[in-house]
Amino acid sequence: MTATFQRLWQEIAPIGRDSKGGYSRYALSAPELVLRDWFRNQAARRSMNVTEDGNGNLFAWWGTPWGHHAVITGSHFDSVPHGGGYDGPLGIVSAFLAVDLLRERGITPAKPIGIAAFVEEEGGRFGVPCLGSRLLTGAITPEKAAQLCDADGITFAEALGAPPAGALPDLVTRMSAVVELHIEQGRALDDLGASVGVASAIWPHGRWRMDFTGAGDHAGTTRMADRQDPMLTFAYTVLAANKEARLAGAHATIARVLVEPNATNAIPSLVRGWLDARAEDTATLDRLVEAVVKRAHERASRDGTTLAVEPESSSPEVAFDHALRERLAGILGGAPILPTGAGHDAGVLSAHVPTAMLFVRNPTGVSHSPAEHAPDEDCTAGVRALADVLETLA
Amino acid sequence: MTATFQRLWQEIAPIGRDSKGGYSRYALSAPELVLRDWFRNQAARRSMNVTEDGNGNLFAWWGTPWGHHAVITGSHFDSVPHGGGYDGPLGIVSAFLAVDLLRERGITPAKPIGIAAFVEEEGGRFGVPCLGSRLLTGAITPEKAAQLCDADGITFAEALGAPPAGALPDLVTRMSAVVELHIEQGRALDDLGASVGVASAIWPHGRWRMDFTGAGDHAGTTRMADRQDPMLTFAYTVLAANKEARLAGAHATIARVLVEPNATNAIPSLVRGWLDARAEDTATLDRLVEAVVKRAHERASRDGTTLAVEPESSSPEVAFDHALRERLAGILGGAPILPTGAGHDAGVLSAHVPTAMLFVRNPTGVSHSPAEHAPDEDCTAGVRALADVLETLA
Repeated sequence: MTATFQRLWQEIAPIGRDSKGGYSRYALSAPELVLRDWFRNQAARRSMNVTEDGNGNLFAWWGTPWGHHAVITGSHFDSVPHGGGYDGPLGIVSAFLAVDLLRERGITPAKPIGIAAFVEEEGGRFGVPCLGSRLLTGAITPEKAAQLCDADGITFAEALGAPPAGALPDLVTRMSAVVELHIEQGRALDDLGASVGVASAIWPHGRWRMDFTGAGDHAGTTRMADRQDPMLTFAYTVLAANKEARLAGAHATIARVLVEPNATNAIPSLVRGWLDARAEDTATLDRLVEAVVKRAHERASRDGTTLAVEPESSSPEVAFDHALRERLAGILGGAPILPTGAGHDAGVLSAHVPTAMLFVRNPTGVSHSPAEHAPDEDCTAGVRALADVLETLA
Repeated sequence: MTATFQRLWQEIAPIGRDSKGGYSRYALSAPELVLRDWFRNQAARRSMNVTEDGNGNLFAWWGTPWGHHAVITGSHFDSVPHGGGYDGPLGIVSAFLAVDLLRERGITPAKPIGIAAFVEEEGGRFGVPCLGSRLLTGAITPEKAAQLCDADGITFAEALGAPPAGALPDLVTRMSAVVELHIEQGRALDDLGASVGVASAIWPHGRWRMDFTGAGDHAGTTRMADRQDPMLTFAYTVLAANKEARLAGAHATIARVLVEPNATNAIPSLVRGWLDARAEDTATLDRLVEAVVKRAHERASRDGTTLAVEPESSSPEVAFDHALRERLAGILGGAPILPTGAGHDAGVLSAHVPTAMLFVRNPTGVSHSPAEHAPDEDCTAGVRALADVLETLA
């Protein structure tokens, strides 16, 4: 069984991997398109029909496509830049192997099982995470999604080849349950000595784009007193976000930045930073972001710069379906139940369908980095757990 | 005469200009190659032979190419990203028009006049400013220059099409004088009500690459206390550089940054910043950089990150030839004499040849930005001044 996992995993391991072992599999980019072809081939090998929902999400079906009471599993192929290889693809590979295992067991599910490959889960290309599941459920309008641009100015609609279809409530109501398997993004399972766990909740979180605008000028000839340097305001805000998050017992990160013109000898005219903030409840999150923005504005008035803040995405707290998670933990012989700070397509779908997540142990605890790793034995345990869950649900 | 300037200026105005009016004319990139063709055409129209020195620098000759006692003028075509259109090209356009004016006056110069287009003056593509004049004079080895990379991993040797030739002392000794005309990068001439000024000195300056290394991880799931976030160390260093420069009466700027992976939800593994520092004397500059680096290291140990500092370029103080600058000010009827914080190819050449610079008024005082501007009348005054100077020197 471990050898089976290894064989399938090796098929996708080289796709989109750089020389340092990091993965850059942006949504609808060349490596992700290769993975989508691989997805279609895997489905064909298993005589599963593939449907596309007009939003970039693929579904491979065991049973009637979009039949009633469908049980959805799967995850996403796309990665953050130079990320790990497990975040996303492990859920898809495990789903195909779980289907194989159920067939070996001689199971014929009463409900259709759909393996999903959601598009742009990371928001690494178009800026909005879980874009595919948000479109499908109506959490973002197709008009807004169509116009999202990547770093080269290509819109989501252009990358997709057509304007996205938007919300498909008829399809969402045909789902009876969603179970996403995912590598754990922390060390909790390793501390507990468990291969597989069940998710309890996702912290509320969001992204805010912060545009710090100043006056572009020559770094060599402009007196310090004459400058309106937005890099100073940005730098102060980075430190303020860190401090406010520590005070609030929450998470705040500014990890992405764009500078214009980004030349060594030119004071920037614009520094754009993205604030990622998360907290255990919405009130704490709101207070945190408010405090960071207030301090950034104060510093801007000192630097002679201006600041515009634009919320790019916002995800309320997700408490996964209580009955479903208890049922899964029971099926899995009392698997641990854990919260997470990371967003997922399952979190978006949980507003509409009873939804659960399975986590597979990641001993490094590292995520969004090539250091992310799940041992083959734990991945195999994950496949078995997912098969057990699907057998019961479908 | 102003109409003549306008006509020639309009020929190059659209080349490499973006929709916001900024110029991105990187060395040996498509727009700069168009400008180099334009240079060859201008030379041909004037029956001037063009030589290339194997380092990417072009010279258009009135008189014997590389004849003895040559008088060199001209400047550079390349710009910073989204910079102004005058910084560099004004010196080349003015040189061709000065040749026209001398011919109208019926002058036949006793010495060869060479109009130079130096390559990569800004360091905007390969990171080392004045790369062409440094190669020509031996201030950088051809081996080191050959390996400099642009953002796409293309080396200077690849862009040039061959390994650079390196130092050519035989040619440098044939220069009797260098006069570079340049738009002023401050408001001093405007304050004095003068169209044209003469340079006294260039502040010593340099660039230091600072690599802040931490541990890449997930921004949502990694506890604040567990982070080794190099963005924090970078941000602190930006503020420290600003403060130390103010205390020293000097200039320090961190205006260029590269983040890996630069994703909203991934704590960076690397933040690379470039420090640009300048001061009126070398001792002050050394103390300033030492203070910034010391504070950055202190903060790194607090953040659990590491810092590596690599000097990328260093330019000692340049005091332009005293006799030549007094002579020029005299020729120009007592033009004002000004220092500058900006580096120039003339600064590199001044270590080998009596060298001077003419500045043309820039009422906005802004540089390295589309807001940089010299009125046509002042540009015309610059052409006349350059012609007067060349007439006397050649």
